Amino acid sequence: MFAARAAKWDRERAYCWDNITDLVDARIMGMTIPKELGGLGASYLDVVKVVEEVAKACTLTARVVVEANMGGISAVMAYGTDTQKQLCAPLVLAGDKPAICITEPDAGSAATEMRTTARKQGDTYVINGTKHWITGGGVSKLYLIFARVLDGDGSDLGIGGFIVHVDPGAGIEPPGFYVLGREKTMGLCGMPEAELRFENLMVGADMALIPPSGFKRGFADLMNAYNSQRVGAGMIAMGVAAGALEHAKKYLLERRQFGRPLAEFQGLQWMIADMDTQLCAARLLLHAAAQSRGPGGSQFPDMTMAARAKLFASEMAIKTVSDSLQMFGARGYGDREPLERMYRDVRMFTIGGGTAQVLRTQIAGSVLGIKTPQTRDT
Amino acid sequence: MFAARAAKWDRERAYCWDNITDLVDARIMGMTIPKELGGLGASYLDVVKVVEEVAKACTLTARVVVEANMGGISAVMAYGTDTQKQLCAPLVLAGDKPAICITEPDAGSAATEMRTTARKQGDTYVINGTKHWITGGGVSKLYLIFARVLDGDGSDLGIGGFIVHVDPGAGIEPPGFYVLGREKTMGLCGMPEAELRFENLMVGADMALIPPSGFKRGFADLMNAYNSQRVGAGMIAMGVAAGALEHAKKYLLERRQFGRPLAEFQGLQWMIADMDTQLCAARLLLHAAAQSRGPGGSQFPDMTMAARAKLFASEMAIKTVSDSLQMFGARGYGDREPLERMYRDVRMFTIGGGTAQVLRTQIAGSVLGIKTPQTRDT
Amino acid sequence: MFAARAAKWDRERAYCWDNITDLVDARIMGMTIPKELGGLGASYLDVVKVVEEVAKACTLTARVVVEANMGGISAVMAYGTDTQKQLCAPLVLAGDKPAICITEPDAGSAATEMRTTARKQGDTYVINGTKHWITGGGVSKLYLIFARVLDGDGSDLGIGGFIVHVDPGAGIEPPGFYVLGREKTMGLCGMPEAELRFENLMVGADMALIPPSGFKRGFADLMNAYNSQRVGAGMIAMGVAAGALEHAKKYLLERRQFGRPLAEFQGLQWMIADMDTQLCAARLLLHAAAQSRGPGGSQFPDMTMAARAKLFASEMAIKTVSDSLQMFGARGYGDREPLERMYRDVRMFTIGGGTAQVLRTQIAGSVLGIKTPQTRDT
Amino acid sequence: MFAARAAKWDRERAYCWDNITDLVDARIMGMTIPKELGGLGASYLDVVKVVEEVAKACTLTARVVVEANMGGISAVMAYGTDTQKQLCAPLVLAGDKPAICITEPDAGSAATEMRTTARKQGDTYVINGTKHWITGGGVSKLYLIFARVLDGDGSDLGIGGFIVHVDPGAGIEPPGFYVLGREKTMGLCGMPEAELRFENLMVGADMALIPPSGFKRGFADLMNAYNSQRVGAGMIAMGVAAGALEHAKKYLLERRQFGRPLAEFQGLQWMIADMDTQLCAARLLLHAAAQSRGPGGSQFPDMTMAARAKLFASEMAIKTVSDSLQMFGARGYGDREPLERMYRDVRMFTIGGGTAQVLRTQIAGSVLGIKTPQTRDT
Repeated sequence: MFAARAAKWDRERAYCWDNITDLVDARIMGMTIPKELGGLGASYLDVVKVVEEVAKACTLTARVVVEANMGGISAVMAYGTDTQKQLCAPLVLAGDKPAICITEPDAGSAATEMRTTARKQGDTYVINGTKHWITGGGVSKLYLIFARVLDGDGSDLGIGGFIVHVDPGAGIEPPGFYVLGREKTMGLCGMPEAELRFENLMVGADMALIPPSGFKRGFADLMNAYNSQRVGAGMIAMGVAAGALEHAKKYLLERRQFGRPLAEFQGLQWMIADMDTQLCAARLLLHAAAQSRGPGGSQFPDMTMAARAKLFASEMAIKTVSDSLQMFGARGYGDREPLERMYRDVRMFTIGGGTAQVLRTQIAGSVLGIKTPQTRDT
Repeated sequence: MFAARAAKWDRERAYCWDNITDLVDARIMGMTIPKELGGLGASYLDVVKVVEEVAKACTLTARVVVEANMGGISAVMAYGTDTQKQLCAPLVLAGDKPAICITEPDAGSAATEMRTTARKQGDTYVINGTKHWITGGGVSKLYLIFARVLDGDGSDLGIGGFIVHVDPGAGIEPPGFYVLGREKTMGLCGMPEAELRFENLMVGADMALIPPSGFKRGFADLMNAYNSQRVGAGMIAMGVAAGALEHAKKYLLERRQFGRPLAEFQGLQWMIADMDTQLCAARLLLHAAAQSRGPGGSQFPDMTMAARAKLFASEMAIKTVSDSLQMFGARGYGDREPLERMYRDVRMFTIGGGTAQVLRTQIAGSVLGIKTPQTRDT
Repeated sequence: MFAARAAKWDRERAYCWDNITDLVDARIMGMTIPKELGGLGASYLDVVKVVEEVAKACTLTARVVVEANMGGISAVMAYGTDTQKQLCAPLVLAGDKPAICITEPDAGSAATEMRTTARKQGDTYVINGTKHWITGGGVSKLYLIFARVLDGDGSDLGIGGFIVHVDPGAGIEPPGFYVLGREKTMGLCGMPEAELRFENLMVGADMALIPPSGFKRGFADLMNAYNSQRVGAGMIAMGVAAGALEHAKKYLLERRQFGRPLAEFQGLQWMIADMDTQLCAARLLLHAAAQSRGPGGSQFPDMTMAARAKLFASEMAIKTVSDSLQMFGARGYGDREPLERMYRDVRMFTIGGGTAQVLRTQIAGSVLGIKTPQTRDT
Repeated sequence: MFAARAAKWDRERAYCWDNITDLVDARIMGMTIPKELGGLGASYLDVVKVVEEVAKACTLTARVVVEANMGGISAVMAYGTDTQKQLCAPLVLAGDKPAICITEPDAGSAATEMRTTARKQGDTYVINGTKHWITGGGVSKLYLIFARVLDGDGSDLGIGGFIVHVDPGAGIEPPGFYVLGREKTMGLCGMPEAELRFENLMVGADMALIPPSGFKRGFADLMNAYNSQRVGAGMIAMGVAAGALEHAKKYLLERRQFGRPLAEFQGLQWMIADMDTQLCAARLLLHAAAQSRGPGGSQFPDMTMAARAKLFASEMAIKTVSDSLQMFGARGYGDREPLERMYRDVRMFTIGGGTAQVLRTQIAGSVLGIKTPQTRDT
């Protein structure tokens, strides 16, 4: 079902609304939300198993599954107040995939360079700034906006997350919240990657997501939640690769040359064996990461395990999809097979959610037990 | 100029007609055609140097340069009669890129399974069959059609090439020559990959391209010409990679993070060093292949050298473009940079013009001095 | 302790007798032997965890641990009679590592070409033939000899395993059992790889190891036991790599250049991150393989999981040890560091216990669900 | 001849004196020395072609060929006075391979940290310091010692090279020149890698090798000469790989399994094709580097081309030798085939003569047009 529709979202750059209904019915949206809030209380391992199957058919829909269960929503479930949980849980269970808003045009992955601000003004935070490459911007109803928190006197309190509810269809249109443009991406075409602009966007103090450690160290806590999303991203990549390999296997068994199935050619067999072995390794890493927990009683996956799993899975997936496409020859390069779409989709996963380079630096720091300054002068 | 227009051909899936005028003016179309026929008598080495520069800017246009100087046209120049040369040279010099028609839906790379037939009937050959993935089908005016030649009594004479001139704009529409569909490819979008159908297409005996060795071994001779095209294909891939690396270098020098240009980060530097080294190796292989000659006084590149160069360059190029794109992060995944187009374009080159797998088998056969049957029972 | 002695076994090509005492004392020899026979009844997972730690220090000793718990001894524990178990368990618990005798000079990995014969003669089997590359030949007391079983009339009954007890020190010297030569190997130098010759070696019928399925399909059953050894071999390789990486990390933190520890150089950090990630993936594959079980209630690891784990771990380990050595520069190439020994040792593991090529063919067959004949004509 | 003796030098850690005679007779020693000084005036390209052939048979001897034609001797020929040339040319032509003395225990590749000093005292330089990993220390007669030059008053004049002639057999034993120890290396076992100690070693001013630019920038000039040696080192690696591939091809054609030569197995064929292609690329890079010239009328290869060629060739060679060894299975791991020695020998070449990491940094600096400080604070 998802497989059959996948080409359409890609071709039309349309969000997979039809599939959302199916995901809601299957109780996959928000399956990690605790039972008392209406979810299934599912574990991250449960989620990633679903993600693999969905990603084999449709990368776009798999992203929705991840973001409706990991990342932003799990940060709310972990750190949120009852008010926040009772706002967010029903929305996600009903089909919303929250959008996390971190990246800015000039900041890249460096939190120290974040320029969006949330200035405290009595019981309200006034948010100003621009975010880009916001996944789901324009289709999501929940936005978790990261901003530098300023006290009334302008002093820097740290970085905080703010929950904003937007739903134009229901008349919920917070003044000062603008979805400006949308990137034209190579793949994952049904998912908007939007530019958002906040101009004196007012957010009530009850919508500030404050981890136990407060704003000062809050970004680190909030980023811990991101480790779950990172595992999810790795799992999507892995699932796409698994889907591509299934297509390749099927084709090798059907297609004949020189009077026998391609599957009998030893060179191709060895390529299949390598792909299968790598896939298997990636799956084990991802499952281990999903089950791992960071230090200090964290509810989220261990940062280093998540980084290893995402790094390995995303690079493996790009190669596996490419090798699977190769099996089809020119046929794989055209749109009669889903391989070319998978090839475009999967390329994002060494970039989004922590580039392979950032992850390597993170893993090395953890393994070597050092934190190397990235600036030149220290 | 070519760079500025490249996005348009891609987006609109349009042939680069505007560039053809420039290529004709620059005497690049048919530059390998001997001077006495109006060309420059340029060497393959001359051509590949041009190809690299053009491919940095526009993959599509680089393909035109290759096919207007190597492959089909060089087969005509090497084996053709005066009549044939005098038909083809002016067309190519005026902007035509001939189309070679080999691949069939069920034959893949196995010549033994070719089903298109050219039945001799007096002074005429009657061609029937279907070809697909014919590069330029519908925009080319010259077609070199490979078909199994049958004598009047149906006996198999070997495989031959037949030159067909088609130009609907000029009212030249050979009956029985049909351009049916066109693949929707991931990249190289401006170049039609068409399905052609021949129904009792009549070709005069004077348009049969017969190498000195005649039909019986003629396919091998005609395929020798293909070795030049193979070098050209490798060169396009290499040129795209060179272009991508130039973009990446520029970006690394401009983009700053943590207070210094990305170019200062050692991990990225080492990626650049590897890309540069591989590119350099590929260029040397391609130049050597362009200058090599097959055994027996062949006018075409040595098959093994061509295979090595194409294999190395195409795999290197896919990786180099991918790593260059990676340098840009999410920006590289969107259409504000040419990287995503280059990534889609370059993927074809381990497939078209001899897959990496076919080339490996060919190289190994040559190195080991054996020809292993590809069928199971022999 | 093992680390300190490792250089000596290597330099003197001496068996690690000193370590055996330690292993016996630690109850590591035969730890998989059931409690009722004096062992610990440990699982394969228990064993591989020990193997990793031992292999970090001494590859040779790790091989002993594997062969004293997996492979031959586990075949006896699974399929043996009480008599056989009561012979073998005490020997292994007291320090013997059994030797499996399969490979023959002209047979390689093809069982169909095995030439050693065991001819049934009343209650006795008369064994004749030559084996080579027999690990532990000359230091082991237990030999599990694979031979083609012939009935009295010469008819072929299949392939069987025969247990032979040899202990010259205790006066147990079966006539017709000869240890001829020994390979001079690049690494693993303390472990004899011997050539054995059997000339009318008489083995009582009670020492024929017959799986439930009998001789006809017995080789397959006996090879299933080998899947445990394969996991063990992969684990040794992985452990050596883990040890090498620990050395490299320590060195990077200590050694300074340009006024700062090597560990701060981003290029080296990324190499460390890749090594660490690959190691982690290998460990998970090996643990999963150790816990897997083949179909039909097998007591041994699943063939495909074992093959994947061995393939991945052995290739990863060779690369990781090489990259670790590289961190040391010239120092790593000399014998002041253990890296050069580890580099020589670890090279064996894509060969012994199923070459990477054989494993790829096996994995592909399983994944594709086909068995491709390896002969040309079928 | 060289091939037959190679195992002996390796086993006995003995210098290849027997081969030196053959090299002298063949006029290979000092073939780059100008004709007027008794050499052949051969080009670097001439030398590297010889090196490839010699390295196929004996890595050790190939190193002698390189060091008797490139590196130290070429620095003397380029920058030396007539006196210096007339000392060095005859020695090399008669069989000496000069030793370059740069590396120090604590300096690694950082010239700024060189501690050996040459203090000017009237017409003499007094040298004090320790060098290690000096190739040929103890067997060479000519030593080119790099030291920090101090004026009489202790002021730093730059880095200079000093020629020292040592020949105990002929009674030439400069006081204060000591060969202390020798590394026990994994491979290249016949070549001493020695520790040298200089205690008030007196060198006449006429033996100071001063490039036109004087001491201040002289190190850079002297290191330019090293670019020739670097090309030579890459060529040795490439030659060893070429030799290993020849062995592998021969074995694949001879050895049969499942009733046919291994050479018929497609998986192995593709490995051969990859090895062959990579070898071919390496050869082209090395030949191009040998023919290149640095900027400003340099007589030595271009630094970036030399770095690319050495980097590519050395990494390729390690992989190719390993894959060739793999073809032999366990047989390749023992000393009946030369593969295991080649595997140990070739491992040095990503280390000695500029590690792969240093070369990457050098190439990137050249490609990006920047020089990144390697210290943290600048």
